[in-house]
Amino acid sequence: MPQGKPTTVPNDGLTTRQRRRRPILAVHTGPGKGKSTAAFGLALRAWNAGWPIGVFQFVKSAKWRVGEEDALTALGEYHAQTGTGAPVTWHKMGEGWSWIQRAGTEQDHARDAAEGWEQIKRDLAAENYGLYVLDEFTYPMKWGWVDVDDVVETLGNRPGSQHVVITGRDAHPSLLEAADLVTEMTKVKHPMDAGQKGQKGIEW
Amino acid sequence: MPQGKPTTVPNDGLTTRQRRRRPILAVHTGPGKGKSTAAFGLALRAWNAGWPIGVFQFVKSAKWRVGEEDALTALGEYHAQTGTGAPVTWHKMGEGWSWIQRAGTEQDHARDAAEGWEQIKRDLAAENYGLYVLDEFTYPMKWGWVDVDDVVETLGNRPGSQHVVITGRDAHPSLLEAADLVTEMTKVKHPMDAGQKGQKGIEW
Repeated sequence: MPQGKPTTVPNDGLTTRQRRRRPILAVHTGPGKGKSTAAFGLALRAWNAGWPIGVFQFVKSAKWRVGEEDALTALGEYHAQTGTGAPVTWHKMGEGWSWIQRAGTEQDHARDAAEGWEQIKRDLAAENYGLYVLDEFTYPMKWGWVDVDDVVETLGNRPGSQHVVITGRDAHPSLLEAADLVTEMTKVKHPMDAGQKGQKGIEW
Repeated sequence: MPQGKPTTVPNDGLTTRQRRRRPILAVHTGPGKGKSTAAFGLALRAWNAGWPIGVFQFVKSAKWRVGEEDALTALGEYHAQTGTGAPVTWHKMGEGWSWIQRAGTEQDHARDAAEGWEQIKRDLAAENYGLYVLDEFTYPMKWGWVDVDDVVETLGNRPGSQHVVITGRDAHPSLLEAADLVTEMTKVKHPMDAGQKGQKGIEW
């Protein structure tokens, strides 16, 4: 609804223009599909706006975002060749980040998650990206591997114009409270309910 | 959930492999954000799978999908140069397609919508694309500009392996019935509620 009019005008001392340019903290949560997919769709807009994109993949499995990774990496290469768009940096947290615990102990996973978050903090402090996609970042928050208060405070105090989108189920209430934009994806119908398994190009 | 197991195995005479490869009809509906964004995110996977992508933009305004259009068009160019990925064809239905009626009479819009749908039917019959993004196609269906029974029947009988994703609010019950995958996007919180207007790179 870009053409819409806000229903309220807050008494925050900002002009409409200043308010419009505030960076967004978005959360895509809920049990339905499209949480991450919509975040990567948002990355297309960011790319076109010329904002460097940093993806931090708190992966379930190394292969699951391969379609998005290859396509966004290609957009980064296109930018390097033509100057159009923006660079794309894809951070994979490795198998240790899996919430389906394929290898390593829970302590290993917790340490990996904490290290990933420390990297994000350094990038935020350095204003390295215009859009951060923190894919499935709700899970390490939920499991206490990353301190929720630290996340909320760090994001709330991030400098400059750095947009952040966090995906995953069961977003912490404090994160929802801090977010500017929250969308819940609800499953109405899924092919798996009719006995159909996931397929390349659709599910990953 | 690609690693998940279907909870039921239908008595449809198909093998698991055949069933897995059936093309999907997906609908992203509901009042929240992310309906179209998730559809364009899906296009990233399709691109990586090498499926030619056809976008049919039943636009509200010519500028609104410019980020996605430019990024996906760049991916199409990348494909043309390198062979990686897939071609991307972007069909804009022109100002006449706007559901905010900027110009033209309602009859003009209805005729434009019907012509767009006829083009989609020709492309489906010719199996021109692996993924069709019918962006905001629910609206011409809702307003009777396109015959719902014709849409459902045509999509149900489409040949080959052509995936279709339809976005927009108020999806017709017959379309939901025909769909394999339905996700509802629900607004939990939106910056506009706090007085912030949409901005480039986020909203378009």
